[in-house]
Amino acid sequence: MTHTYPYARPALAVDCVVFGLDEDDLEVLLIRRDLEPFAGKWALPGGFVRVDESVDDAARRELSEETGLGRVFLEQLYTFGDPGRDPRERVVTVAYYALVNLSAHRVKAATDAREAAWFAVTDLPRLAFDHDAIVAMALERLRGKVRYRPLGFELLPPKFTLGMLQRLYEKVLERPLDKRNFRKKVLSMGLLEELDEVEQDVAHRAARLYRFDKKRYRELEKEGFDFEL
Amino acid sequence: MTHTYPYARPALAVDCVVFGLDEDDLEVLLIRRDLEPFAGKWALPGGFVRVDESVDDAARRELSEETGLGRVFLEQLYTFGDPGRDPRERVVTVAYYALVNLSAHRVKAATDAREAAWFAVTDLPRLAFDHDAIVAMALERLRGKVRYRPLGFELLPPKFTLGMLQRLYEKVLERPLDKRNFRKKVLSMGLLEELDEVEQDVAHRAARLYRFDKKRYRELEKEGFDFEL
Repeated sequence: MTHTYPYARPALAVDCVVFGLDEDDLEVLLIRRDLEPFAGKWALPGGFVRVDESVDDAARRELSEETGLGRVFLEQLYTFGDPGRDPRERVVTVAYYALVNLSAHRVKAATDAREAAWFAVTDLPRLAFDHDAIVAMALERLRGKVRYRPLGFELLPPKFTLGMLQRLYEKVLERPLDKRNFRKKVLSMGLLEELDEVEQDVAHRAARLYRFDKKRYRELEKEGFDFEL
Repeated sequence: MTHTYPYARPALAVDCVVFGLDEDDLEVLLIRRDLEPFAGKWALPGGFVRVDESVDDAARRELSEETGLGRVFLEQLYTFGDPGRDPRERVVTVAYYALVNLSAHRVKAATDAREAAWFAVTDLPRLAFDHDAIVAMALERLRGKVRYRPLGFELLPPKFTLGMLQRLYEKVLERPLDKRNFRKKVLSMGLLEELDEVEQDVAHRAARLYRFDKKRYRELEKEGFDFEL
């Protein structure tokens, strides 16, 4: 069945920049394209919006279909609408970014058997379409937001050490942070719950584990509290 | 000529939330719809994206065609993509917000002779489609951004008094600000150029005029300076 309209319509797609944090790096999840254009090149997971689903739902569906990722933090980033961005035809894409806790979410083989892999943001290959620009904007958004919203915690396991939290901020902001100042600032917000547990299976001295107190944050937010790190 | 595709495509539109500041209020520019659906209701200026123009260009074109506004500050806000947002058919809209200096830009009669009018944000009529939600998000974005980006100046004439600047912030943030603190903060940033001129044609004592030093801001921005008001 074909669909006919009185005026030409751009195709509408979604693309997702999925960030994860491993031991060493802030990483982005990429899919290797097997079809032209850009066959063999790495690209963001994504696809076309169906006419009966919301754009948000399309992003979640594509993420799930192409990477197996389910309930993760996902937020709209920006809509990229230059006429030349896809050599086949006019495609406007609504870009999203997702934050994934790598310890909980393994990326399974994509359903259509395409190759999926994590790349350090500091060492990305040249991407298909305008996906370089989309990743650059997602990084900028993440860098800006991580300082005044508690979304960095989405990249950590539920229980984490202060060292892990500092490393997260250092990787996202791409600069070293002073340990004493960082800890003082973090703890003074009163948003971390100190647990009666320490790290397991570590070679160095096991550090104390903490949990982000989401409920307390929501309360403070209502009172006009500004998160800032 | 009709256009045929193998899959159904949503229509793609743009809508613009145009903010202006008059003597009394922060205002939004609305257009009265003459066609169904929502005939007679007020709505945001906007229209469909042409297949050969960028989404940004579509927003500028629609703004110009429907309101006569040309070179104004315009930034993408968010893409609204719920399936039910237009009762006729599936329409995804990329929303923008614009900031207008009302002293320089008169809104002319819309080219298609529809009625255009400014409404105080505190006293908006019920809008067509999901435009209420779009305006609400634009206001939230403006409130957030005005504090850490110097975009409020786009709402003022090039030469303004400190009183005008304070009133702008009070109207956008919807709360009174302490005059002494505000002036101290504003002047301490070193971004305002004090002019050798005072207000003209005012009943009260004429106040000193200032100009926002865009060049100085760009220099400071490069050095990592954070605008904050």
